[in-house]
Amino acid sequence: MNQPELHPAVEPVRFLLGRWRGEGRGEYPSIEPFGYGEEIEFSHNGRPFLFYVQKTWNLSDGYPMHSEAGYLRPVAVGSVELVLAQPSGITEILAGTLADSRIELASTLVGVSPTAKPVTAVKRVITVAGSTLSYQLDMAAVGRDMSIHLQADLERQLDPAV
Amino acid sequence: MNQPELHPAVEPVRFLLGRWRGEGRGEYPSIEPFGYGEEIEFSHNGRPFLFYVQKTWNLSDGYPMHSEAGYLRPVAVGSVELVLAQPSGITEILAGTLADSRIELASTLVGVSPTAKPVTAVKRVITVAGSTLSYQLDMAAVGRDMSIHLQADLERQLDPAV
Repeated sequence: MNQPELHPAVEPVRFLLGRWRGEGRGEYPSIEPFGYGEEIEFSHNGRPFLFYVQKTWNLSDGYPMHSEAGYLRPVAVGSVELVLAQPSGITEILAGTLADSRIELASTLVGVSPTAKPVTAVKRVITVAGSTLSYQLDMAAVGRDMSIHLQADLERQLDPAV
Repeated sequence: MNQPELHPAVEPVRFLLGRWRGEGRGEYPSIEPFGYGEEIEFSHNGRPFLFYVQKTWNLSDGYPMHSEAGYLRPVAVGSVELVLAQPSGITEILAGTLADSRIELASTLVGVSPTAKPVTAVKRVITVAGSTLSYQLDMAAVGRDMSIHLQADLERQLDPAV
């Protein structure tokens, strides 16, 4: 099927569409700080949501680290939801606001599989300025209060997805 | 990066790897029965889980219907977990058993976003016999008891993903 037209409901988050690549920094009270490479892709199929696929890798050897996949749902003017799953056995449902190329989300539910680490709450802020997508992820996990965990700056890619 | 070797933990679910395509049938006490086209792909990146990506389409016009994405996690001998997200605003965490190319999963948690339909529990059975992957999905939703919702038979595809 050819690329369909963007659903009108998705128009307010059109600025996210495409593939973004760059580097991020991770930290948490329980771990040593670390860096990572990252690629994010937002795409659509004509329906009223965006596909979200993300992966990170070790900067020294390219070995895969984290990944996650899910869907961004504009649900009303200025209002969005994000649902996603992670191979660590975690699911997130977040809801929040959209204004001026800035999305602020807080988890309404974090699901953990029977063998996953206990993550209890997540906040995600995603902004796009020019050709740069930046995000910050805060989380409450392993008995710790909400604290910054990840921050990255990614550049819009113009070449085909790899 | 070249295709890495399969992680030993994933060996028991190697039979799922690849792309599967076919047709399914949907029903539920609250809706009219319907048919759909479907493609599922299980892939890996060398880490101890499989990527799971699924999409369905209207058989008459090819228009996208459902989709979901997540991760299958072998967590012990004969024991697997599946976590996934859906653009309808739903996340699922399922746990269950693996034996003889048959996976039986029951939800430990179904998450629904603030605007999603109320799904409360899901069961999924996935089997592979020869070149056919079959699954059945039962769910409890919109106030109904657990009941069959989806059943499909998909054939292993040998051509590149589309």
